[in-house]
Amino acid sequence: MKTFRTLPAVVVALVVAASLPPCAASADEGQWSPEQLAEFDPTAWEALRARGLAFSPAQLWDGKGGGLLIASVEIGGCSGAFVSADGLIATNHHCAFDALQLASTADRNFLENGFVAKDRAGEVEARGRAARVLVPKRIVDVTDRVRGAKSAYARAKDDLERYEAVELASKEIVAECEKSGVSRCRVASFYDGLFFRLQEQTELKDVRLVYAPPRAVGEYGGEIDNFRWPRHTGDFSFFRAYVAPDGKAALHAAGNVPYRPAAFFPVSSRGVAEGDLVMVTGYPGRTNRYLSASAVKNFEEWFYPLRSRTYIDLIAALEHASASAAKAGDKEAPLRVANAIKSYANQETNARGQIEGLRRNGVLARVRTEESALSDYLAASKQAPSEWKTALTQLEAALAEDRQGQERRFYLEEIERAGGLLNSALTSVRWAQERAKPDLSRDAGFQDRDVERARQKEKEVTRSLTPVPQRRVLALLISRSLASGPSLALVQAFGAGATAEAVEKKLAAMDEGTRLAGEEVRLANLPAPLETLSRSEDPYLKLATALAPELAAIRKKRKETAGAMLRLRPAYLSALRAYRKSLGRPVYPDANSTLRMSFAEVKGYAPREATLFLPQTSTKGLLAKETGIEPFATPAKVRDAVTRGDFGAWGDPQLGGVPICFLSNADTTGGNSGSPTLNGKGELVGLNFDRVWENVAGDFGWSPIVSRNVSADIRYALWMMDRVDGAENLLRELLPAR
Amino acid sequence: MKTFRTLPAVVVALVVAASLPPCAASADEGQWSPEQLAEFDPTAWEALRARGLAFSPAQLWDGKGGGLLIASVEIGGCSGAFVSADGLIATNHHCAFDALQLASTADRNFLENGFVAKDRAGEVEARGRAARVLVPKRIVDVTDRVRGAKSAYARAKDDLERYEAVELASKEIVAECEKSGVSRCRVASFYDGLFFRLQEQTELKDVRLVYAPPRAVGEYGGEIDNFRWPRHTGDFSFFRAYVAPDGKAALHAAGNVPYRPAAFFPVSSRGVAEGDLVMVTGYPGRTNRYLSASAVKNFEEWFYPLRSRTYIDLIAALEHASASAAKAGDKEAPLRVANAIKSYANQETNARGQIEGLRRNGVLARVRTEESALSDYLAASKQAPSEWKTALTQLEAALAEDRQGQERRFYLEEIERAGGLLNSALTSVRWAQERAKPDLSRDAGFQDRDVERARQKEKEVTRSLTPVPQRRVLALLISRSLASGPSLALVQAFGAGATAEAVEKKLAAMDEGTRLAGEEVRLANLPAPLETLSRSEDPYLKLATALAPELAAIRKKRKETAGAMLRLRPAYLSALRAYRKSLGRPVYPDANSTLRMSFAEVKGYAPREATLFLPQTSTKGLLAKETGIEPFATPAKVRDAVTRGDFGAWGDPQLGGVPICFLSNADTTGGNSGSPTLNGKGELVGLNFDRVWENVAGDFGWSPIVSRNVSADIRYALWMMDRVDGAENLLRELLPAR
Repeated sequence: MKTFRTLPAVVVALVVAASLPPCAASADEGQWSPEQLAEFDPTAWEALRARGLAFSPAQLWDGKGGGLLIASVEIGGCSGAFVSADGLIATNHHCAFDALQLASTADRNFLENGFVAKDRAGEVEARGRAARVLVPKRIVDVTDRVRGAKSAYARAKDDLERYEAVELASKEIVAECEKSGVSRCRVASFYDGLFFRLQEQTELKDVRLVYAPPRAVGEYGGEIDNFRWPRHTGDFSFFRAYVAPDGKAALHAAGNVPYRPAAFFPVSSRGVAEGDLVMVTGYPGRTNRYLSASAVKNFEEWFYPLRSRTYIDLIAALEHASASAAKAGDKEAPLRVANAIKSYANQETNARGQIEGLRRNGVLARVRTEESALSDYLAASKQAPSEWKTALTQLEAALAEDRQGQERRFYLEEIERAGGLLNSALTSVRWAQERAKPDLSRDAGFQDRDVERARQKEKEVTRSLTPVPQRRVLALLISRSLASGPSLALVQAFGAGATAEAVEKKLAAMDEGTRLAGEEVRLANLPAPLETLSRSEDPYLKLATALAPELAAIRKKRKETAGAMLRLRPAYLSALRAYRKSLGRPVYPDANSTLRMSFAEVKGYAPREATLFLPQTSTKGLLAKETGIEPFATPAKVRDAVTRGDFGAWGDPQLGGVPICFLSNADTTGGNSGSPTLNGKGELVGLNFDRVWENVAGDFGWSPIVSRNVSADIRYALWMMDRVDGAENLLRELLPAR
Repeated sequence: MKTFRTLPAVVVALVVAASLPPCAASADEGQWSPEQLAEFDPTAWEALRARGLAFSPAQLWDGKGGGLLIASVEIGGCSGAFVSADGLIATNHHCAFDALQLASTADRNFLENGFVAKDRAGEVEARGRAARVLVPKRIVDVTDRVRGAKSAYARAKDDLERYEAVELASKEIVAECEKSGVSRCRVASFYDGLFFRLQEQTELKDVRLVYAPPRAVGEYGGEIDNFRWPRHTGDFSFFRAYVAPDGKAALHAAGNVPYRPAAFFPVSSRGVAEGDLVMVTGYPGRTNRYLSASAVKNFEEWFYPLRSRTYIDLIAALEHASASAAKAGDKEAPLRVANAIKSYANQETNARGQIEGLRRNGVLARVRTEESALSDYLAASKQAPSEWKTALTQLEAALAEDRQGQERRFYLEEIERAGGLLNSALTSVRWAQERAKPDLSRDAGFQDRDVERARQKEKEVTRSLTPVPQRRVLALLISRSLASGPSLALVQAFGAGATAEAVEKKLAAMDEGTRLAGEEVRLANLPAPLETLSRSEDPYLKLATALAPELAAIRKKRKETAGAMLRLRPAYLSALRAYRKSLGRPVYPDANSTLRMSFAEVKGYAPREATLFLPQTSTKGLLAKETGIEPFATPAKVRDAVTRGDFGAWGDPQLGGVPICFLSNADTTGGNSGSPTLNGKGELVGLNFDRVWENVAGDFGWSPIVSRNVSADIRYALWMMDRVDGAENLLRELLPAR
């Protein structure tokens, strides 16, 4: 670990002390970075060994890009894992959702019916989010370069410069890292800017669909069971990574060969039982374990409630409009909006869970208490530097300033983010704006390295284009935006205070006049200069050009706030870490989409008074839940196999059927979808796919009482392959010793 | 037990053998009649003693109208119990619902705010359903008189005569019993007509409200928690019975004095714990434990689904229309329809539970299996009489015939039953029709003894009159009736195939033209002769007069079916009882609103895979459930007392608060609402108020796995009196030794 020349030596000493992992008893809390494993207290490691761990820290992560953990990959915005020597990858069904959708046609619906490649030749190119697999290669500390004494950060005159300095330094490091052309790189901030670490990954570009169950298995329980327990969802799917015959990453080509990963997690056929040690590795996206009180309050009382209300309305609009469109003859409309609905629904349910959990867990009160105790601790401390003592006050002032106008920003950003042709138009305008800057000064996602992905995205727009539902969503957001604060561009385009109906009428006229529905037109716009775009008479491009300055101002505001956080949060985090360490509480960085590991136990919980949840479900409970009506309608071939008790080698007599899901107390969040759940021997026993409802607010604090994640038991997948789909090829590959 | 001269001696012997209670292990299944307690196998009784029972059978019921069980009363269509020497009665809050509603005005809303009489003078006359209390006096077997060899039953030429013979004999027995003027009497059929027993009860006519919690406590959880566990509903209320100074039953009068019951259940302040023996006594209404397969199928596939669908629509109509009426200025409209909504909602939820439970428990398959086994048993039996062997086939044929036109009957009967002025008009027409017959030949509810109650009901009509919602309900039912089968009267009045909107318009015109909204007019119609009513130009009376013959035909059809059942069911039941007895399965009569007792254990259950329910809840869980939004909005005075931990003597440290509800495996059904739950010493520990969702279909068969009833823990009531309402007077009366 490097030292930090911009901070006083005493701070550094405290920081280093505070970053040591905690005692063994609380190892189940924490999303540990690979480097932290090496720093684990030997006693803590011994305790894990006593629970069944069969590895040394170095076997998991050797610090030089080796170790079992590199079998843990990113795929389609999810986590995943190599599970065979021939590059087979296991992840969730819901991570394969758009790959299955994009591979489907009216004739062969892989989403509804599932997908089984009976041999390598039958494997189908994955498009969409799952088209790329990122394999860990190297992690390097770059804190000094990003924000050391000689950095632009140290010389920044204001918060915007400070933010841009960090961005630029990060991009320079990334550019150097990616120069060779074989890696994807990213600089990640740990402890909100206290440390920066370069993450280098090998990008595999030929990924193929291998196996997925029917949607009615992979999504069993649907939104009704989402975040719930007991759960009976077979949320698994399998891909395979391919490379050029020389072993190098290459785009999809007939002559490519299966990738041979340096490490993989062999599949266990023995399964798990209550009390077992398990480990979950993967790429958790974002947690907020170290927020200050006003930030928690804003999430609980403003952000999540507004998101929930808004998305409920958007989902209803999408469902209603796509049903109407289907009635009117556009039979694919529901399929085309399925992904958008799923995404809004997932975020909406999550928002409600956060609100409920924050309230139930009393997070705000706890943070306030801790802030007060921290304040006492700092006042009594002779070592604590003055920056620590003033950090909280300054932080809260900066956050209060940032909350000005946040509702206006919320709607404008939702408009920018909504799917459809306005999004395409805004994207091309943004590309034109960003292209005017040097590559490294551009915003993330708009560098030359992102061009190919941007083109890919425009191609996908074609597949999801559904004008009626998409303009209903946009009309709703625009009308609310008009009511929530001034947007000159929207007022000019739709009139002040226009209703959703009025906006929708104008959007319908725009849909008549636009040429952006043509994929070629959109692809041509991507590299077009700003003058060309702003002279265009296309109604969406006109609106995008008018909106662009307002969206740019919002981004600038966000950068200023981010710069202020880069100035204040490291000191606050340092103080908080020192204080927590003094109490023996665990200290680990918030999730930031980098590789992490969580130790856990297969374990039930008490979700509420007078109720106990046991940690395993099976096909017995599946049958009991079955109504024959979606989302509780198991395909006949699966239901029949269950009914006739054809469990093969996969049944658990105690459970009375084939195990389907299990709970553990692993520390997970969004991004952990598809994470391998491993036993103490490093064998894959499940695939994490959800958290329980009571743990949604776990992002704001892990709880030994209710923090439980849900894994699909790998035995359900193996049973499906064996007794339902006859996928002998896969069984042989996954269980060669069988 | 008497013998039955109309059955062969061998049948009688088998019947007597089969009616003996079963072995100790299964005593928790069964709603035992008081006489059966005396016949309990001594071993079974010893087993109960070992579990904590402190009584001999004779102490509970001496067969001569004495014993602790006579503290178990009927009140307001519910069960209840004397709990003090001064006639204090405990029952459910929901049994006091209409008494609280009828006693409320816009100024003093006892339903919302609760009711606390701080002394006897503060006790308020109960009107509505809870205005009468029925106390057990005597039970006498009258089988021989009803259907013995010399009876009209034995001479009946057809099923209608057979039905009427039983009715007439029953009424004669009742009339004799009631001659003295102090008793209410009823002849109840046991085992579907195998035995008949006269139930004599003392009717107390001056009942007063003493204590009820606010609706937000008594209904906590509302429809959302209805039938659910864990539960936090304070479903208790207290009344007091008064009599004339000479101790005789008398109508409400200032000079009346508290009734001194011959027995009462003292209240326990020690509460219950998991594993405790408890007993539930009361008046379970109706179970269907001995149905044949086609009858089960008809319930599962036709009746409950239709009831559920219909009531969902009626509830929506009532809610929507009463909200509209309130907006339009009739602010009391929601209060006036509250009772109707509650009743429909309860039946609708029940219907769904029955469907779900019947399916989950595989009742139909089980009955079919049993019928087949019974058939084998009878074929192999040399003793079984031929009536037994043919009973099932004949029974199924009669039921198949009865199912003809059942949908048409369903709607017409719902129309007859719906509240409002058509109901009043139909009632007066029916009175006129029935009055033409000798008193004893009239249908139940239309004898001279029922006149006072009928007048009372017309007075209540005034309080619940809400034309807009009531005609919405009627319009909906009439339009469906028009679509489901011919009704000449409805077609003439509303036109064939009229929509609900069209019907509603005509009903609105009828509401303009009717005089029945006047209470005096309705009361005057009750004794009016048929000629007078049928000459009336009142639109509701005209419709009622036209509908009357069709409704009479339906009643006649029902009587014929009932007569067929009286002919066939006793033989079938005799056979089934003999068969079950041969397997050691418990044999007890279906519930029939007579006094019963169930032995039970305080016990949780596993409602579904991976889920265990513990048997007790407390104020800790209440707080966790609280949202501040109805139905999870505890009144501030209660919530504050919980929050400050002011549990007094009533807290349970293990539970972390004051106990609120508990589960046991008592055998209960509708009508058991308000049943005292007693400990082994006969002390009141709770008030039964619900069953769990998985046990709703328990009416078709008790299950050791999911048959659980829910009681309000009496400690919650005592705590409310003590720490929230300062009702010292009641505490002293309930716990004199405290």
